[in-house]
Amino acid sequence: MSQSHNLAINGSRLWDALMEMAKIGATAKGGCNRQALTDLDKQGRDLFVRWCKDAGCSVAVDQIGNIFARREGADASLPPVMFGSHLDTQPTGGKFDGVLGTLAALEVVCSLNDLRIKTRHPIEIAMWTNEEGARFSPAMTASGVFAGAFSLAYTRALKDFEGKSFGDELDRIGYAGALPVGGRPVHAFFELHIEQGPILEEEGTDIGIVVAAQGQRWYEIDIVGQDSHAGSTPMERRRDALLGAARLIDGVNRIGRMMMPDGRATCGVITVSPASRNVIPGRAFLTAEVRHPDELKLEVMARALANLASDVSRELGLEIAIKQTNIFPAQPFDTELLDIIRKAASTHGLSHRDIVSGAGHDAVYLARVCPAAMIFVPCVGGISHNEAEDCKPQWVTNGANVLLQAVLAKAEIVAQ
Amino acid sequence: MSQSHNLAINGSRLWDALMEMAKIGATAKGGCNRQALTDLDKQGRDLFVRWCKDAGCSVAVDQIGNIFARREGADASLPPVMFGSHLDTQPTGGKFDGVLGTLAALEVVCSLNDLRIKTRHPIEIAMWTNEEGARFSPAMTASGVFAGAFSLAYTRALKDFEGKSFGDELDRIGYAGALPVGGRPVHAFFELHIEQGPILEEEGTDIGIVVAAQGQRWYEIDIVGQDSHAGSTPMERRRDALLGAARLIDGVNRIGRMMMPDGRATCGVITVSPASRNVIPGRAFLTAEVRHPDELKLEVMARALANLASDVSRELGLEIAIKQTNIFPAQPFDTELLDIIRKAASTHGLSHRDIVSGAGHDAVYLARVCPAAMIFVPCVGGISHNEAEDCKPQWVTNGANVLLQAVLAKAEIVAQ
Repeated sequence: MSQSHNLAINGSRLWDALMEMAKIGATAKGGCNRQALTDLDKQGRDLFVRWCKDAGCSVAVDQIGNIFARREGADASLPPVMFGSHLDTQPTGGKFDGVLGTLAALEVVCSLNDLRIKTRHPIEIAMWTNEEGARFSPAMTASGVFAGAFSLAYTRALKDFEGKSFGDELDRIGYAGALPVGGRPVHAFFELHIEQGPILEEEGTDIGIVVAAQGQRWYEIDIVGQDSHAGSTPMERRRDALLGAARLIDGVNRIGRMMMPDGRATCGVITVSPASRNVIPGRAFLTAEVRHPDELKLEVMARALANLASDVSRELGLEIAIKQTNIFPAQPFDTELLDIIRKAASTHGLSHRDIVSGAGHDAVYLARVCPAAMIFVPCVGGISHNEAEDCKPQWVTNGANVLLQAVLAKAEIVAQ
Repeated sequence: MSQSHNLAINGSRLWDALMEMAKIGATAKGGCNRQALTDLDKQGRDLFVRWCKDAGCSVAVDQIGNIFARREGADASLPPVMFGSHLDTQPTGGKFDGVLGTLAALEVVCSLNDLRIKTRHPIEIAMWTNEEGARFSPAMTASGVFAGAFSLAYTRALKDFEGKSFGDELDRIGYAGALPVGGRPVHAFFELHIEQGPILEEEGTDIGIVVAAQGQRWYEIDIVGQDSHAGSTPMERRRDALLGAARLIDGVNRIGRMMMPDGRATCGVITVSPASRNVIPGRAFLTAEVRHPDELKLEVMARALANLASDVSRELGLEIAIKQTNIFPAQPFDTELLDIIRKAASTHGLSHRDIVSGAGHDAVYLARVCPAAMIFVPCVGGISHNEAEDCKPQWVTNGANVLLQAVLAKAEIVAQ
């Protein structure tokens, strides 16, 4: 195995590819709308497949539309080192979320070609279908099928807002392949992604070593009191559902702060009834979600929320019903791969820090079936899922260089 | 002047009149929809005018549709003792709000006829146009014109939701009279009304001596932070507009409790943006209102709200803009009339307590131009502005008996 520390990808080629892909579904405000299994998704896939074939890869598509572009290794019997991400976007998404990880993987393959490097393990670029979940919920659907979280039949039956099914739309754009989904060994999976948060940019850190993805629990909270006249109802006789909601919102924030730095707790949606300026609200609806990369601490947060609701209910004479609507277990990433990524960053003289992924990613499902890890690069202002999403060319290059080093560490360079 | 302590109204006649009036605009759920200046309002007015004429009153209508049914006194040169309320209802209103005060005044006249009592002062039953403000805002419009708060032209130009004007609708139903609005002396004004709150019923008290109407200040609050990803934004880097709203809601409630028992402070409406389960809200809109019968204490509450907003803004890094959208000054009622009402309640062996009116009433405007006071009776569950609004026959009788005594105290019985 030869030295790889002086190897580097072609940053301008990668940047050009990102900008070329961004034309497909480009929005007036500089973002992308290339939702899963639309005609635009097909155009993006077609371009990607052409580029992969141009890079000498063999391309296979599985039954749920995941695309695998394979560069053979010296030993075809070994499981592949896999890397990639997704090409679908939010309706008002950006140019980098998912696309960076997919096209950086392609750039790594092109660079290996340029550098005439042969690996012992085959390497495969993976493009996962419907990561965003914007058109078909839940998110990360097809990497979920790959990892055994969802069945093929369940996923094909998912409907979009117009009632069109995932399966029909997949067939329509011609990306329901023959390859069975998953069920084969993967030596390692790497995913490069923008952080989608503010930490790296604010700290001026080049690379985030993603040690884990947060576990998440989502809730809907119904609060019932008594609506009554704001003028004639004394303070001590009120059963104010909005006041209950306020105490819960403040308490949920405290639960997040109690678990700093990695915990998160957020209320995002609130409605009240009757929503009249001079009527004490008799009903309120609130959503809450708690996140932590440590499943035990997440459980502590969930219990704190239940206790909070019980306290507020008793203090204010309200009925409070909490329903858990969604659960994602916490997912630590592979420690060996994380060490490889740290070393790769150091090799390129890039600063790095451990970080937790706040968002869901395909790598989270892959981690259930193979060693997996993620590499974060900063994004401007921490803004993502937004047409203003932005990433600097140097950050893109840094991330792809680390990805190259990491993949080679697992795929192993063969002396020619 | 003869003894009046054994005088009583005819409770079953009054109850029958209330039930007869309630047929006009009756709703399926047992309430009334008899909004101002509609065909149903005209039917209600026509019935009321007929009853007044049957009771021997002369009826005059002023230019804004207020109806005055006059029973002459011994000395026609003296200003009248006036009493009454309104006949219009909320769209889903009840059978008693306003109607009780109007028909109890009519019952007092009928009882004086039965009892062959002559008074020194003339007495006038007043029926004020558009008290509710449900169809034409602001509320208490026509008593406001009577008291000089609004001009006739301003009020006639008010539009309903369909764009129809107050003046056109008043002309259409034939109740734009010739009498100038206000500008004449009134010896005293009494208004009997249901409490529209829970205090009297819960305490088992028969009569509320309404010492004042609350002053009110209404606000709209805009809160601006930064919307961001609920998973990837650390707790300490958030600018959460919903958290700001929660702190304000809780603080507004504290301001109300600080001013117990008479203070009120309420948030009734809240909206957030973007209102997504996994996005920290960047914007929130909130309404707040504070009330107190003492103008100085109301000013303290208003300043406390401004300080609260400033504190929350600084603590959470939010921009908070407060706009005052409505102001009603506090209005104390006439102390001599209040003593008369207390004595009248005692004469009938009825328990009573001082109470503050949380809602607006025609008597509040009348208090600007003559001695005025209100008498409250309980309503079931404190529920009003609702088809379920209810009042017991005994409470109705109690209130009308007190009204009779109070009116006679000011109008003075003349020996026959």
